[in-house]
Amino acid sequence: MMKVKELFSQASDYLDQEVTISGWIRNHRKQKDFGFIDFVDGTCFPSLQIVYDTSVVDFEGVQKLHIGSSICVRGKFVSSVGKGQNYEVQATEITLLGDCPEDYPMQPKRHSNEFLRSQAYLRPRVNLFRAVFRIRSVAAMAIHTYFQDRGYLYVHTPLITTTDCEGSDQMFKITTFDFDRLPMKDGHVDFSKDLFGKKAYVTGTGQLHGEAFAMAFRDIYTFGPTFRTEKSNTKTHANEFWMIEPEMAFCDLNGLMDIEEEMLKFVISYVMERCKEELQFCDQFVENGLLKKLQQVVDTKFIRITHEEAIQILKDAKITWEFSPEFGEDIQKEHEKYLTEYFHGPVFITNWPKDIKAWYMKLNPDGKTVAAVDLEVPGAGELMGGSQREEDYEKLVTRMKEMGIDREPVEWFLNLRKYGTCVHSGFGMGFERLIIYLTGVTNIRDVIPFPRTPGNCDF
Amino acid sequence: MMKVKELFSQASDYLDQEVTISGWIRNHRKQKDFGFIDFVDGTCFPSLQIVYDTSVVDFEGVQKLHIGSSICVRGKFVSSVGKGQNYEVQATEITLLGDCPEDYPMQPKRHSNEFLRSQAYLRPRVNLFRAVFRIRSVAAMAIHTYFQDRGYLYVHTPLITTTDCEGSDQMFKITTFDFDRLPMKDGHVDFSKDLFGKKAYVTGTGQLHGEAFAMAFRDIYTFGPTFRTEKSNTKTHANEFWMIEPEMAFCDLNGLMDIEEEMLKFVISYVMERCKEELQFCDQFVENGLLKKLQQVVDTKFIRITHEEAIQILKDAKITWEFSPEFGEDIQKEHEKYLTEYFHGPVFITNWPKDIKAWYMKLNPDGKTVAAVDLEVPGAGELMGGSQREEDYEKLVTRMKEMGIDREPVEWFLNLRKYGTCVHSGFGMGFERLIIYLTGVTNIRDVIPFPRTPGNCDF
Repeated sequence: MMKVKELFSQASDYLDQEVTISGWIRNHRKQKDFGFIDFVDGTCFPSLQIVYDTSVVDFEGVQKLHIGSSICVRGKFVSSVGKGQNYEVQATEITLLGDCPEDYPMQPKRHSNEFLRSQAYLRPRVNLFRAVFRIRSVAAMAIHTYFQDRGYLYVHTPLITTTDCEGSDQMFKITTFDFDRLPMKDGHVDFSKDLFGKKAYVTGTGQLHGEAFAMAFRDIYTFGPTFRTEKSNTKTHANEFWMIEPEMAFCDLNGLMDIEEEMLKFVISYVMERCKEELQFCDQFVENGLLKKLQQVVDTKFIRITHEEAIQILKDAKITWEFSPEFGEDIQKEHEKYLTEYFHGPVFITNWPKDIKAWYMKLNPDGKTVAAVDLEVPGAGELMGGSQREEDYEKLVTRMKEMGIDREPVEWFLNLRKYGTCVHSGFGMGFERLIIYLTGVTNIRDVIPFPRTPGNCDF
Repeated sequence: MMKVKELFSQASDYLDQEVTISGWIRNHRKQKDFGFIDFVDGTCFPSLQIVYDTSVVDFEGVQKLHIGSSICVRGKFVSSVGKGQNYEVQATEITLLGDCPEDYPMQPKRHSNEFLRSQAYLRPRVNLFRAVFRIRSVAAMAIHTYFQDRGYLYVHTPLITTTDCEGSDQMFKITTFDFDRLPMKDGHVDFSKDLFGKKAYVTGTGQLHGEAFAMAFRDIYTFGPTFRTEKSNTKTHANEFWMIEPEMAFCDLNGLMDIEEEMLKFVISYVMERCKEELQFCDQFVENGLLKKLQQVVDTKFIRITHEEAIQILKDAKITWEFSPEFGEDIQKEHEKYLTEYFHGPVFITNWPKDIKAWYMKLNPDGKTVAAVDLEVPGAGELMGGSQREEDYEKLVTRMKEMGIDREPVEWFLNLRKYGTCVHSGFGMGFERLIIYLTGVTNIRDVIPFPRTPGNCDF
């Protein structure tokens, strides 16, 4: 059996040949003596037109075929004289495989994204999600290809952890206990009786484990699911999402930015090459100018400024801010937006005030800032966040004390600074944020196959 | 800065040139007027020999360099006259970047795998794990490449679920509650107050969600982490591992076997091509004959027999079984072993007794067996398990009733059989089992970066 993708991509081979294809009816227009079926088999974005007339086997039965049904079509693959497509199949036989009742929710009309979320198991069949989830799949492959072609090791860092140094409030607790029969000891749940003999969590980062592997393989990356318990019902928050966390030994902050920039350009180019129709659809129906925006990122040299310079630019701007930009403080969404518009492209902001960044980041010689970098992109804000890591044992321990981080559970991580430490850097990129950027879709719920958000864990 | 991998792969370009490389000291042999450093930078399996003599900057300091330290080497890349390597670097300058104390646990000697597990954050630096984790990374890429090149959609199915139809005993429960302040209602924990408003779990399969996507994209695959709560301390069980679950619409049991066979051969060939040195190491030190075994699988047409035929072969064997083989019953490890030896290669066993298989498998016309298939491979037993799925709504509902499966939480999954159902099939492959097979390593703890097993969740 052929696939529609093959027919289109090797059209000259199949032209005027008999073909057999199986797939689904997206639409069905019936005339008295003939009919048109809008047919997809899932292998490519464009649909294939099936034409039949009274010569088809069981013409009357064929005319009754419902939208959503699965069918097997035998016929001749020919050039189309109709508008809107280059090829069509003149059917000699159309066999019903699986019927679909007329109350099928995915009728060919405009549905709201809210409605489609309530039909998460069916929405992959409509154009928006056929585009978004193909782009998601190809973008994932782009990331693997970028890193593997450059010799990076793909590490599956663990999700289950007994270390709560991320702040256990932000982590889901996991247990094998029956909640109706929790073993107690001294008035508390006795986790020594749980599967791992300790209280356990699912983690929100693979960075610490990634660093251990970078100290052996030099260049590594992770790519896996991540969990946050945030009770935040915004367009950009989900409780389960995917992250990419590369970590490179013998790489400083400038080297890190080089990699981030090269990777992003590679991924965009890779997707633009392989998802032409899907991106055109998004450009037309989701974000006007999407393709131009993406091409611009590929063609632009990213700007690199310090946090201090960024604040100065914001202060100099003749704008009434909702949040006044201040040296030594974090920047807000409105500031990110202004900066990317100011530079007409992506901007790296480096050397952040130490007190608003994580404990493991490399302290700069000024004693006030850390060698951290955020990448801000036009239209989406922060896309990646990274830093050079503090590779000095004593400095790291001092910083942990200052910030009140418990060292016991990460003693092994500190030891990486004892046994052949070296300059190293890494970054994290939320995969959904990349997909939002690549598709123009604005709600994270619409780029995740089955999104999990507060109050929502159906399907 | 160059990488050792580049020096080796483009040796003729670098020959007799000055190079600068950073990496770690694996071994250091000192003589009165010269010395040899066994040097790695993590980018490739073979180490590079660094030679120095009294002409090196600070000869005395260099002689004091410890094993495990990170260093930067400047020198000339030359052909080696010594045994055991083709190239070496004649150092003019060796700079210490990060020292390593003499109590460094990874001294160059033989360590037991048990000891190395207790040093999980350092063990990626020793040869066994440099080989295993590189093979793991490349095998992951092989899988992505196989499916993406053939148009499959990579789907990130959710891990968090509120559906317990897998049997909630086998799933971790997750919660955001503080265990010391669980909200109660009528004597039970009140999960309506938890993040998702329901009791939630982390799942052990993405199959059901994968099927929803196969009904839209035809060919899909998942590749992600999976969790089981099994309190089983064997060589083959871990509580967190990775799974691949492809699902194909318009594909029957024979088509499924074709794909499984082609995929496995592709992955083996891909890894053999890209991990020559790593596999040679495993062949020499882990499993003698490994390379021959793998090549044989690539060259062999896999056998296909029914469960009934398999039982007959086992009954006919002149062997005293620990577990007597019986029609209608499951087969044991000893039986798997015998069958793969009997056929000198991988064996597909099809059409299993329905009562020992899952509820969603396609009932055969005999009413007694299901269209399931297990792939047994020499030396590792079951590597993949799959089936044609029951695509008939009524038959599936009947089977669920018989087996006492609650349909309410999977009503959406049943609906896939209502809206354009079709013949479809899928399989699951435990990624660690594949890595065990590819490396010859026998304990699952040694193919997972940071394994989680009962009582063990350190690091």
